Amino acid sequence: MPSGRKGSVPRGSNLLQAAQELGVELESICGGRQTCGKCQVIIESGHFPKHGLTSHPDHLSPPSPLESEYDQEHNLNGRRLACAAEILADVLITVPEESQAHKQIIAKEATQRFIEIDPAIRQVYVEVEPPELGDPRGEWERIALALEKQWSLQELTIDSKLLPDLQSSLRAGDYKVTVTLWQDKEVVRIQPGYSEGSYGVAIDIGSTTVVAHLCDLRTGDVLATQATMNPQVRFGEDLMSRISYINSEPQGFVRMNRMIIKSINELIEKATAKADLTPQDITDVVAVGNTVMHHIFLGINPTQLGVAPFALAIDSPIDLKARDLGLSIHLSGRVHLLPIIAGHVGADNVGVMLAESPQEQDEITLIVDVGTNAEIILGDKNKVYVASSPTGPAFEGAQITHGQRAAPGAIERIRIDPKTLEPRFKVIGYPQWIASGSNGLIPSEVKATGICGSGIIEAIAELFLAGIIDSKGHFLSTSADRSSRVHYDVGEAYYVLVDEQLSSTGSPIVITQEDVRAIQLAKAALYAGTKLLMDHRSITKIDRVILAGAFGTFISPYHAMVLGLIPDCDLDKVNAVGNAAGDGARLALLNKQLRLKAARIARTVEYVETPLATNFQDEFVAALNLPHASDPFPHLDGVLPLPTVEVQKKRKNRIRSKYRSRS
Amino acid sequence: MPSGRKGSVPRGSNLLQAAQELGVELESICGGRQTCGKCQVIIESGHFPKHGLTSHPDHLSPPSPLESEYDQEHNLNGRRLACAAEILADVLITVPEESQAHKQIIAKEATQRFIEIDPAIRQVYVEVEPPELGDPRGEWERIALALEKQWSLQELTIDSKLLPDLQSSLRAGDYKVTVTLWQDKEVVRIQPGYSEGSYGVAIDIGSTTVVAHLCDLRTGDVLATQATMNPQVRFGEDLMSRISYINSEPQGFVRMNRMIIKSINELIEKATAKADLTPQDITDVVAVGNTVMHHIFLGINPTQLGVAPFALAIDSPIDLKARDLGLSIHLSGRVHLLPIIAGHVGADNVGVMLAESPQEQDEITLIVDVGTNAEIILGDKNKVYVASSPTGPAFEGAQITHGQRAAPGAIERIRIDPKTLEPRFKVIGYPQWIASGSNGLIPSEVKATGICGSGIIEAIAELFLAGIIDSKGHFLSTSADRSSRVHYDVGEAYYVLVDEQLSSTGSPIVITQEDVRAIQLAKAALYAGTKLLMDHRSITKIDRVILAGAFGTFISPYHAMVLGLIPDCDLDKVNAVGNAAGDGARLALLNKQLRLKAARIARTVEYVETPLATNFQDEFVAALNLPHASDPFPHLDGVLPLPTVEVQKKRKNRIRSKYRSRS
Repeated sequence: MPSGRKGSVPRGSNLLQAAQELGVELESICGGRQTCGKCQVIIESGHFPKHGLTSHPDHLSPPSPLESEYDQEHNLNGRRLACAAEILADVLITVPEESQAHKQIIAKEATQRFIEIDPAIRQVYVEVEPPELGDPRGEWERIALALEKQWSLQELTIDSKLLPDLQSSLRAGDYKVTVTLWQDKEVVRIQPGYSEGSYGVAIDIGSTTVVAHLCDLRTGDVLATQATMNPQVRFGEDLMSRISYINSEPQGFVRMNRMIIKSINELIEKATAKADLTPQDITDVVAVGNTVMHHIFLGINPTQLGVAPFALAIDSPIDLKARDLGLSIHLSGRVHLLPIIAGHVGADNVGVMLAESPQEQDEITLIVDVGTNAEIILGDKNKVYVASSPTGPAFEGAQITHGQRAAPGAIERIRIDPKTLEPRFKVIGYPQWIASGSNGLIPSEVKATGICGSGIIEAIAELFLAGIIDSKGHFLSTSADRSSRVHYDVGEAYYVLVDEQLSSTGSPIVITQEDVRAIQLAKAALYAGTKLLMDHRSITKIDRVILAGAFGTFISPYHAMVLGLIPDCDLDKVNAVGNAAGDGARLALLNKQLRLKAARIARTVEYVETPLATNFQDEFVAALNLPHASDPFPHLDGVLPLPTVEVQKKRKNRIRSKYRSRS
Repeated sequence: MPSGRKGSVPRGSNLLQAAQELGVELESICGGRQTCGKCQVIIESGHFPKHGLTSHPDHLSPPSPLESEYDQEHNLNGRRLACAAEILADVLITVPEESQAHKQIIAKEATQRFIEIDPAIRQVYVEVEPPELGDPRGEWERIALALEKQWSLQELTIDSKLLPDLQSSLRAGDYKVTVTLWQDKEVVRIQPGYSEGSYGVAIDIGSTTVVAHLCDLRTGDVLATQATMNPQVRFGEDLMSRISYINSEPQGFVRMNRMIIKSINELIEKATAKADLTPQDITDVVAVGNTVMHHIFLGINPTQLGVAPFALAIDSPIDLKARDLGLSIHLSGRVHLLPIIAGHVGADNVGVMLAESPQEQDEITLIVDVGTNAEIILGDKNKVYVASSPTGPAFEGAQITHGQRAAPGAIERIRIDPKTLEPRFKVIGYPQWIASGSNGLIPSEVKATGICGSGIIEAIAELFLAGIIDSKGHFLSTSADRSSRVHYDVGEAYYVLVDEQLSSTGSPIVITQEDVRAIQLAKAALYAGTKLLMDHRSITKIDRVILAGAFGTFISPYHAMVLGLIPDCDLDKVNAVGNAAGDGARLALLNKQLRLKAARIARTVEYVETPLATNFQDEFVAALNLPHASDPFPHLDGVLPLPTVEVQKKRKNRIRSKYRSRS
């Protein structure tokens, strides 16, 4: 149990052998030496008519001396070590989950998807023949022989950096050692005696944030998560300004590379310390990042990614040694980078696809990961397309009059009363809605510092819903008559969101006509890219929307749709998944098959170069409107203000011209 | 010609294609692009009845524009580029040696053995598709595709350290690059454009001397040879004293490792400078050395090699990256170490076997490589045995009253007149024999400083031949009566080899009873080891003796045999081969198949541990006599002084006891 496998084995076989014979894989590090305690099983007692047998603990040999010793030290609680207990008569055995090899874990809390733990790194314990006079074989050759005899591992190599400590480890462990293997091909660590524990780190190198998940490679548990701001931010928020820095400063690139390596080393140091480990305990790393971060991490100058034709140095998955990158993990530790899809669609997007698996869905799924560029993934199990659309940094609060990065004090939620045009808002770090005039009711230190990305989205959408701006994004002169918050002059129009009393600067926080325009341009680029992929996939509607990345986590799907940032869709089917790229890296860390899968994904997904698409400009122009000049948004029915007379006229014209071209 | 291959090909085929079709392999780096000029052939003119055809240069297409350009720059001298010339009618083609792929070179001047040039490193020239908007493939992927299409190379990897310069190399060469491959598996260098030249270094790390041969990997030529004293000599002449140093000094081992790496880097720097190259041009290194040097080179503390059971950390051949050892060659350059046979039989001995191939001979060959330990290799194509015998450093001049290392001023040749007992000698650095009393005739600055290894051998042998010492190595009291050069007292006896006038110290240079004893012990160890292997091989005589190493180059085979340092053998069959270990490293550098062969040799040769052999002590004692207590030396018949009465008696007894045991 629980597999239900059943069979006869020779009397005297131990339970580990019996399980293997019946195709039930049990955990084992020590290889049946009654040492590691990983193969614990529960012996059922009683008559089991369904199984046609009577089972009793006495039907097994009594505990061996080694097993009793293990029991005393670790308390088996009535369980037996499968490698110790020999079968004397019928038994019914339950294999508890923790003793099953290839355990499954929930890949993502939200989605309840399971993945099998099958990391590239595993540990085995071996007993090695000691050297003898007259036996000229080296220590490594005797370790290799033990690995072949005891674990059927063949043609192994050993990382040359392990050779210096080989003999002392063997002697310290009295010729018993725990060997850590990479891909069952290369020995990457040798520890004296029985020494359980293999750990890895999944890293998502974002333009703004670098996140490291420290994982137990045997259980799949995340032992610590550590994040830091990408230190390159000081050379520019967006990737293009970093590339400019590299090109303008002679040592610029070398500095950037060193910075990112240093901050990853610090993350690993902190994460391992949290889990009472050291960086030396890490033998595997999986990293993802956008193409520029991927290249800088590898020591490749990303300049070519800044100019057409956006040539990548390499797009395949990469396996290399951590020391060759300067990563301070175990000296023989490995690094795997997920593949890249195209010049603007990086390993982070492959990570997203690994985590969200649009390529396995029946439903048409749209995934948008918004940063300086928006990466768009669209498709289902038949075909997936990806594109990158140049949204610019407006969604991140840049290029917005009072825009700022998401940080305490930033306005992240906004509501505008459609009748009074009075605003309410929420700032990061304070839980309650703040209304104009409420300054007496909230702590005096709560003041707004600016508007972050999610705030901007809501602000523009609310301005539209309240009829302050029209579907073309223009401030309506009439709205200035409705409220003193709206200022309307020729060439200058704005809405006062925060009065000076609630602003940390002492000046009002406003949303200007230029801000609206900036968001329109950004959202049009995103929408047009999405439409391009919908055209490639020959569909007119999508079933699900996944908002990936930090930005996606905080924006309101409703407001995003009102703006026409995403196409129309059932709002219940719009979900934010947070750092899906990091999730993908973690999955590839825990399961080596997923690395192959990532490579397949990168090869089979079709990349669409947006600037090459002939209809991109048309789509872009149509998408400037809120939510769109012509695409229907049935899920917003009754919510949106009526289109202006002018727009209605245009629509009629379009329908007429279509009719004409048909006839 | 000269292969004699013959056949029909479609009209219009070029000669390179035709050669490939007929199984004649021509050199080519550019892959048929009329660039490299490696496939030059000679077009025969006239009627050739044997071949049944009339050949004429006009039967080929006229030179192409590219070919004419090549001719102008490099002068083809009437030859054609096989990749340019198209066949229009019958032709007879001669492929000159330099255009043949897998050229053979003489492996060793002396033996006239040939080896095929087939290095682990090769260069190919490819033209790569430039990046294009809409084509998301990386530069590496396009290089890999070009290598597959143009050279049928598949599943290549690229060393990660090449990634940073990949894009600039491609651009500098306008997407034409010369790619250097290791084992047709890994790309280790990418140079812009067509860039001919791949080079490697063969290194023999001796206890005393480190030698580097810089080789052209395409032609097999040795471009420079550079030697230096092993800097570790300052911590002890012999290996055991170096191990003691390591154990007594906390930083001793790290220092030793750094020293040897540093001096190898200097050797490579000097050798490449001689050949107008830089260390960056080196992409492959093959190294050999005794087990202690091998371990220190790899960063492995050799302490275990100093105590029984003399456990090696690793004995297999090793492939690793030069940068992981700290070798300053090309950043992605490779290092190969030949395998080790046993705790005292190192990669240098495998090199010797690769160079001398006893395992392929019909004759029973004995190879002795004398240093602090003597390594003994004995066998033929049926079976080869190896052993190491603890001769101590006497043969190197240590432990000898006036012994010294071979250096200018050291006595290297000695003759003693059997009648007058007057000596003649030669010192290193002066070409003529010097006799006692000749001080007026030779330049005053020529003075003897001591006796080196080869001098000691001759001295003891001459003392024996002149009847000054007997076959047991004892000074004969009677000889003191024959010459004043012999001093004989109870407990003290010596022979004055150099009078004080000819000695640089102003004191006479003498050979004492203790010196004779030291050489007896050393030669007995060597001889006993040899006998042990002869016993294993079940033979009583050998056909050939090869003296390997610097020591072997200078000693007189005749005197060595008189001493009983080697068994009886036809003196014409005793040869010194110099640095055979270094030769072996060079061969493995030039031909990758020989690396596999070296691994086979190391696996199939049988190692005999001398201290374990029960009869070693008996053999040792019998071998203390000059030349031996009982073994016959028919090739010295009539040369040796008659055995003393005592020895004759012993021999009779032995013959009698043999007779008895038979009956």
